[in-house]
Amino acid sequence: MSLVVQKYGGSSVADADALKRVARRVVETVRAGNQVVVTVSAMGDTTDDLIDLAQAITDSPDPREMDILLTAGERISMALLAMAILSEGVPAQAFTGPQAGVITTEHHGRARIIDVTPGRLTRALEEGKVAIVAGFQGLHPETQDVTTLGRGGSDTTAVALAAALKADACEIYTDVDGVFSADPRIVPSARKLDRVSYEEMLDLAASGAKILMPRCVEYARRFKVPIHVRSSFSGLEGTWVMDETKEGDEVEDPIIAGVAHDRSEAKITVIGVPDVPGSAARLFEAVAFADVNIDMIVQNVSATVTGVTDISFTLPTAQVPEARAAIAADAAAIGYAELTVDDTIGKISLIGAGMRSNAGVSAQFFSALRDAGVNIEMISTSDIRISVVTRSEKLDDAVRAVHTAFGLDTEDGEAVVYGGSGR
Amino acid sequence: MSLVVQKYGGSSVADADALKRVARRVVETVRAGNQVVVTVSAMGDTTDDLIDLAQAITDSPDPREMDILLTAGERISMALLAMAILSEGVPAQAFTGPQAGVITTEHHGRARIIDVTPGRLTRALEEGKVAIVAGFQGLHPETQDVTTLGRGGSDTTAVALAAALKADACEIYTDVDGVFSADPRIVPSARKLDRVSYEEMLDLAASGAKILMPRCVEYARRFKVPIHVRSSFSGLEGTWVMDETKEGDEVEDPIIAGVAHDRSEAKITVIGVPDVPGSAARLFEAVAFADVNIDMIVQNVSATVTGVTDISFTLPTAQVPEARAAIAADAAAIGYAELTVDDTIGKISLIGAGMRSNAGVSAQFFSALRDAGVNIEMISTSDIRISVVTRSEKLDDAVRAVHTAFGLDTEDGEAVVYGGSGR
Repeated sequence: MSLVVQKYGGSSVADADALKRVARRVVETVRAGNQVVVTVSAMGDTTDDLIDLAQAITDSPDPREMDILLTAGERISMALLAMAILSEGVPAQAFTGPQAGVITTEHHGRARIIDVTPGRLTRALEEGKVAIVAGFQGLHPETQDVTTLGRGGSDTTAVALAAALKADACEIYTDVDGVFSADPRIVPSARKLDRVSYEEMLDLAASGAKILMPRCVEYARRFKVPIHVRSSFSGLEGTWVMDETKEGDEVEDPIIAGVAHDRSEAKITVIGVPDVPGSAARLFEAVAFADVNIDMIVQNVSATVTGVTDISFTLPTAQVPEARAAIAADAAAIGYAELTVDDTIGKISLIGAGMRSNAGVSAQFFSALRDAGVNIEMISTSDIRISVVTRSEKLDDAVRAVHTAFGLDTEDGEAVVYGGSGR
Repeated sequence: MSLVVQKYGGSSVADADALKRVARRVVETVRAGNQVVVTVSAMGDTTDDLIDLAQAITDSPDPREMDILLTAGERISMALLAMAILSEGVPAQAFTGPQAGVITTEHHGRARIIDVTPGRLTRALEEGKVAIVAGFQGLHPETQDVTTLGRGGSDTTAVALAAALKADACEIYTDVDGVFSADPRIVPSARKLDRVSYEEMLDLAASGAKILMPRCVEYARRFKVPIHVRSSFSGLEGTWVMDETKEGDEVEDPIIAGVAHDRSEAKITVIGVPDVPGSAARLFEAVAFADVNIDMIVQNVSATVTGVTDISFTLPTAQVPEARAAIAADAAAIGYAELTVDDTIGKISLIGAGMRSNAGVSAQFFSALRDAGVNIEMISTSDIRISVVTRSEKLDDAVRAVHTAFGLDTEDGEAVVYGGSGR
């Protein structure tokens, strides 16, 4: 008998009919001889509706109270799912994050899971019940208050439960068939990956593939939890995210897993920074102190003025105001002439564990971009990834050109709706 | 410094504006030098919406899961109220029933409070915070599951917290100005009572006055919690429900507190029951076993057949199907000829602690009914109450006639919207 943790996102439980569909899938899994733990997000727009309510009360809701408010969403979906499973004749019980033993840090709205003590879940499973757990939430033990995990929290809940229960698999149900070699909305011939390593998935996620959040993949890698990303609609086998294949398999493996793209970043250029030790450090200290996530950095000697340099970096567009304010506040110490913001950039990334042992990947990547007339503005690399920044309007062309150049297109590729996994 | 527990029902927190209004009233109470604990119901239609969701999933929702679902309602309103109070610059913290230490029996959907351990509330008050508590819910300690208290649960939560915290008063905010000498929709000249004893309030509540549930008044009487029923809209002084006045005051007190009426009951008549020992007992055992609440009972010797008797009793109309089924299931043992149901009855009750020491109240009551042409079908009395059953269509006339006969009309009475206090 296997133990399976299943996670269903908000779109999979959008209304009563969707919940009944999920219940039938859970019941099928039980009838196939498995023990099942289900993690569930809030239904459809519930979370947005609750946020709107809070905004109608105040511009700056208290984080502790906001978490109390938002956790009502999963409370509703988990109770309804339990009722739906029970009405199919299968024993089931719903548990909040705190009841399920999900222990977190105290950071309301962005807590991190520090432990899982799943005693109640184990007991429910032993009694032959399906255990349903509210995703996205946990308990901070010192305050005894409920916390929420922030973006990607429900996926992380599922992986953390799978790790604590030593589950055989963690199935993440979403509205697409799995992880693809590129976004099928841009590359209709993109193919579903049967298997991808944790490392590759981490880089795909960090490079704009919205199917899983990096924190969830990181948790799975640490505890060796095999993740199965699959569709809650089609029932097809999806993509397994798990350890890299054994050495012997490697010849069979594709060099490249996929092409990711990201339009959510902007570029800030700080012009005329004195070219002396400490100036750049001061700049990035100011930005880091404002909790801004910097992605890529390029420093150029100024072409026109001597003794100064221009520094460009990319960051999430949403964080531009904070970064700008932080730099302005420290302007005297940094000593720059001007600051420009460019939010019409795009980033394309090529990811594959096979890059490590295959020279020439970069050359092939750059020549594909050149042939497609795509100009490169910034470059960053890791051992299994190459990313470049280009103009946003050139990004789709770039993704298609690179996907084709690396032989990733399928013959029978067809358009698939490719969306995020919500929270 | 006084400690005040305030309770706001669903209509007082129907939307964001209503919540802000409640927040301002709480803040006023704090600024007047009081410590405040607030109990809050779910917003407006939230509970009905959640019940509809459950009904869309299954006809018979699991009681445990139903309680998890319904408690999401207070979770939302309590968090929003905390935000609203915080945004007025007053420290506040929201607590679920379990967090507030409300310990209950295990009966999901109709749990009873067995203890309150308000350690977290006391700490919050000591820290100068307003403590907001979800009404209607608690924790069953053995299962560690949330429970709901059923109808009137939020009022009972408020009284139970007031008792446990030894509060100076428990203010129940509603949409009317207090407890009236009769329903102002029927008797426009009804007057607001300044003060009513626990006993009188219990009888008023049990006789159809919807302003407080009997269980809440019973709890207040047991722990001597003074209840102040008042309007969340007008801000006027309302009605105090508290111990009877001292002996010395009694001459000043009115003999009659008020006239209550009730259209929610039906009458079942079981015809041709053998007039032998045990037959009636068997009938009422069957009904009691079905958890039906019987109110009044009348037994008449049959006018036409000898050796048999007709038994009539009143019960909530909603419970007629259960009662009917229970009697039918035991028909052989009871041995009756026929069963009739009459759901066009009404009950009028006259309540007043002064009845004990004043003879002639009954006579005056019956003559007022006679003068109004109201026929009496059943009678029941206690030491502070007389109730009669009459035709439903005669009930309004009966209430007005009795109200006038006992000198309860005010000169300046004006129509007031008189509604229930929700849960």
